[in-house]
Amino acid sequence: MEIGPYSFEEFLKVVESFHGHQSPGVILGGFMVSYALEQLPRGILIDAVSETPACLPDAIQLLTPCTLGNGWLKVINLGRFALSLYEKYEGKGVRVFIDPAKLDGRPQIRNWLFKLIPKSEQDRDLLIAEIRQAGRSILGMRPVRLKREHLGKTRRGAISNCGMCGEPYPERDGLVCRACQGQSPYV
Amino acid sequence: MEIGPYSFEEFLKVVESFHGHQSPGVILGGFMVSYALEQLPRGILIDAVSETPACLPDAIQLLTPCTLGNGWLKVINLGRFALSLYEKYEGKGVRVFIDPAKLDGRPQIRNWLFKLIPKSEQDRDLLIAEIRQAGRSILGMRPVRLKREHLGKTRRGAISNCGMCGEPYPERDGLVCRACQGQSPYV
Repeated sequence: MEIGPYSFEEFLKVVESFHGHQSPGVILGGFMVSYALEQLPRGILIDAVSETPACLPDAIQLLTPCTLGNGWLKVINLGRFALSLYEKYEGKGVRVFIDPAKLDGRPQIRNWLFKLIPKSEQDRDLLIAEIRQAGRSILGMRPVRLKREHLGKTRRGAISNCGMCGEPYPERDGLVCRACQGQSPYV
Repeated sequence: MEIGPYSFEEFLKVVESFHGHQSPGVILGGFMVSYALEQLPRGILIDAVSETPACLPDAIQLLTPCTLGNGWLKVINLGRFALSLYEKYEGKGVRVFIDPAKLDGRPQIRNWLFKLIPKSEQDRDLLIAEIRQAGRSILGMRPVRLKREHLGKTRRGAISNCGMCGEPYPERDGLVCRACQGQSPYV
């Protein structure tokens, strides 16, 4: 069972190197991304949505040209372990998700996904083995089209120095930058 | 001039491979991240905030253990080209930013940062050469401490199947999942 350009074992190493450990979510995400990629025509420009900030963004960043920093990956937190890949300009593509109806006989995946037992009591190796065995058999897939407002690049407009902190910021954010408006995360 | 474990030339290749092209923002971000990393004690667990979704998240993901998917990198969009790295539990660390007062004699960087000329008219190679020459001389750095509410992991609580779409979602999001509440990006 291959995941993108990698064998399963190679992908485990790639995940560990980028994500810090062999995360079940990123590994399952690898199957999801490669399933989605196969549905799309070759040679198109792809954008991605991850419906959760957990794990899936890293599978997308490892297996597609889409990264958070280049703007081709967006996280829209809907709380679902699902992702979509779609043609950048028209927004037509596919959504891949976990189908709970297909989890019979997959106790490790069920325990992990629904958090039925504490993480510390889960057997990581057994879970990864079950994910490997399951592959895309536990996934659902459907065509999607993105709403117009989610397509295209967000333009920030003119930049000038904030009158309070002195740093460059998008003028359209207001008279001072968002941090100086009170959104700073710092004490 | 080194950027993390890479020579400048090596880092250009790493950026191109991950981000898709030799992005000035990610390259400058490389100087910012390595500057910040040097201020922190060795052996601590680091979390990161990028104050913009543009470019900097990729520099952070390439040079630290923090990724979007493992939750150690957060984007708090303040519109400023700045980042902070800090010890995970106490939130003490440093913030690195571009200091506009240090941009004299850096016309390419100024044109790019303040978007004074259209991107198509900017000379990418000249800009990257200027970023290389400038390195951290155009940066500012100050100690920061993160507010308590930004520390620690976000717990999603119990998971069950959504009564509408049938997919697993965090119960605390409501009676049905956020997508079925109308937040779906799909037509």
